[in-house]
Amino acid sequence: MRTRPLKVALLGCGVVGSEVARIMTTHADDLTARIGAPVELAGVAVRRPSKVREGIDPALVTTDATALVKRGDIDVVVEVIGGIEPARALITTAFEHGASVVSANKALIAQDGAALHAAAEQHGRDLYYEAAVAGAIPLIRPLRESLAGDKVNRVLGIVNGTTNFILDKMDSTGAGYQEALDEATALGYAEADPTADVEGFDAAAKAAILAGIAFHTRVRLDDVYREGMTEVTAADFASAKRMGCTIKLLAICERAAHGGSVTARVHPAMIPLSHPLASVREAYNAVFVEAEAAGQLMFYGPGAGGAPTASAVLGDLVAVCRNKLGEATGPGDSAYTQLPVSPMGEVVTRYHISLDVADKPGVLAQVATVFAEHGVSIDTVRQTGKDGEASLVVVTHRAPDAALSGTVEALRRLDTVRGVASIMRVEGE
Amino acid sequence: MRTRPLKVALLGCGVVGSEVARIMTTHADDLTARIGAPVELAGVAVRRPSKVREGIDPALVTTDATALVKRGDIDVVVEVIGGIEPARALITTAFEHGASVVSANKALIAQDGAALHAAAEQHGRDLYYEAAVAGAIPLIRPLRESLAGDKVNRVLGIVNGTTNFILDKMDSTGAGYQEALDEATALGYAEADPTADVEGFDAAAKAAILAGIAFHTRVRLDDVYREGMTEVTAADFASAKRMGCTIKLLAICERAAHGGSVTARVHPAMIPLSHPLASVREAYNAVFVEAEAAGQLMFYGPGAGGAPTASAVLGDLVAVCRNKLGEATGPGDSAYTQLPVSPMGEVVTRYHISLDVADKPGVLAQVATVFAEHGVSIDTVRQTGKDGEASLVVVTHRAPDAALSGTVEALRRLDTVRGVASIMRVEGE
Repeated sequence: MRTRPLKVALLGCGVVGSEVARIMTTHADDLTARIGAPVELAGVAVRRPSKVREGIDPALVTTDATALVKRGDIDVVVEVIGGIEPARALITTAFEHGASVVSANKALIAQDGAALHAAAEQHGRDLYYEAAVAGAIPLIRPLRESLAGDKVNRVLGIVNGTTNFILDKMDSTGAGYQEALDEATALGYAEADPTADVEGFDAAAKAAILAGIAFHTRVRLDDVYREGMTEVTAADFASAKRMGCTIKLLAICERAAHGGSVTARVHPAMIPLSHPLASVREAYNAVFVEAEAAGQLMFYGPGAGGAPTASAVLGDLVAVCRNKLGEATGPGDSAYTQLPVSPMGEVVTRYHISLDVADKPGVLAQVATVFAEHGVSIDTVRQTGKDGEASLVVVTHRAPDAALSGTVEALRRLDTVRGVASIMRVEGE
Repeated sequence: MRTRPLKVALLGCGVVGSEVARIMTTHADDLTARIGAPVELAGVAVRRPSKVREGIDPALVTTDATALVKRGDIDVVVEVIGGIEPARALITTAFEHGASVVSANKALIAQDGAALHAAAEQHGRDLYYEAAVAGAIPLIRPLRESLAGDKVNRVLGIVNGTTNFILDKMDSTGAGYQEALDEATALGYAEADPTADVEGFDAAAKAAILAGIAFHTRVRLDDVYREGMTEVTAADFASAKRMGCTIKLLAICERAAHGGSVTARVHPAMIPLSHPLASVREAYNAVFVEAEAAGQLMFYGPGAGGAPTASAVLGDLVAVCRNKLGEATGPGDSAYTQLPVSPMGEVVTRYHISLDVADKPGVLAQVATVFAEHGVSIDTVRQTGKDGEASLVVVTHRAPDAALSGTVEALRRLDTVRGVASIMRVEGE
């Protein structure tokens, strides 16, 4: 076994970074045995050097991250700063100065993964980021490696713990969105500004990464259709229950039926209670993968948090260090299929639509005609009425999203339709 | 990209082998892109050469597997024969003649994994066997690589599809064991001789492999405590339901509380309906992993079948081919902790015990005394009686298995205990 240690530079020492540093220290002997050489924390770049960081030698702490990655003796840079800059520049500089990189940065990988992979390859370095999607759950490695001999057709996942916590609360307690969000905030599951989570930006970044890896193509963040979950109501959950469903914010990446394109989207959707994703509670994440030969696989676990994210970072760190010792690099970017990304309108899905309508004869016939004119076949209709008002709940068969949204637009124009109370896609059947 | 193909020898062309060959042909372009070089099926060793094998060039078929692996130009040997010999000799010969090996052979890896890994390392080859445990579910790679920076404390899994199908039928229909087995046989889920499955031998081999990898130690097949599930009754399921549980055949690998040893066992157990493993239906497999930093992870999917197993084989094939091209080897055996395996008596668990007792005063006190004398604390007792006979259902707190089985032996000796109707461990709480 080699005795000269591999040197690790840690960029960022917040919730995740401090756990990475802690585990590197407390489990040093295990890491040495598994890598085949010791690993040494050679420097820690932080914004606030005065903050006391338990277990970290103050002499290692610096505010000059650039100088740290330029030192030339760093084998691996662990980037847990997050955000686009300075993370991007630091990673590129790291590659130029001999280091491979382990990152937990979903936003950056989703936006600039292609360029960063190209830079890594140009310099013969590794770029690993298991922690960027679904925290501790092994997902990037299974998709990239375990399923490398298979053809993935679909990835369907709960990849945001905050929104799953909120939706699970709404489901189990009957609470409204705001009440459930308040509880999530109080318990630390939601940030003070929850926009990135509840509007689906976080999940969309993960969907872009997953789609690219699953289909060996390039999916940009802008290619991902995105709807948040702030408008999901207690009434929607009641409707879902009547259908034997619950509501989850899903990231869905699919190969089109004709095989020539892919789609990626994030939106709330009803899924049957019998679907394995339906029973994913609290802030847990789970990702369902459908592959041609493997069939249906699911990966479940904590999608966030300091220690779980650090577990994923350290798994990558061990792999990258082993590669360094073997003078090899791991499997890198694979985007050879160059499949185009189709717009949301071409996604084939089902709608659950609640309409407030006038309670008089002929309304159902009028509504049904609109569906037929748009080529959308109706699966079930439920009509309830009182006091001259009625509600119609229509569940469609599968149809292109454009036809479904066109139907809804036409319904809104009907005099007898007072309002469209809710529209939700139905998935996982 | 290299144009000279990597040559693959396929040993065995049954349900799995023929799927491997089929996918290698139909997905050749994808495999080439993902590996970085074409792969070519260079030979197929079979027992019955006259059998027509669709899509396989008859010129590639041979009955002389040894000559095939000795050819010297083979890069990777895929072994899907199963059993100990001739698989073991062929794998060893393959290493000696320049080939790396992908195997789906759980029995062989469980029995001789250490020696085979040593042979692979001696010759600088890879030995991969994702398909040996839980079919298509990525499990070996996540444990060996994704969790390489973490400390796994527990692996709890449904790793045999046949028995899960039988137990699921018993649970959902109230059928007895024999009736459910007959259905499994009729549907092709159980073999004509189901012993390896229902007596837990298959699951025990997988438990040995999983425990070794999870704890970085050596667990031999003989080290695994094993109980089959042929004595599970409809009455047991009724008892389980009253406790909010179901019954699964579980493979359980644990680090002892003191950390200095590990245990591995296979037996039927009650688990709470709220546990993610409880909802694993039909012939699906799922493995729950508890790690110090990652927390609770679960991996779910088809545990057997030609195509799912071939998916795992091909994932390994791609990895091994990439390693060949990079003149590297992947992460190999890791047994550095050398943790001893403790016997079943030291496992700490809970018992659910059903006793037929005389319906007279003082019996419960007598029974409770026996538990107390063995240091086993009682969680709940339920007593039901009619016609001078009564039944007592006792659920214990956690205690060493030796104390629990000692308690049961002492109970059998009580005059007032007419019989021990069933004993089942309770797990997953």
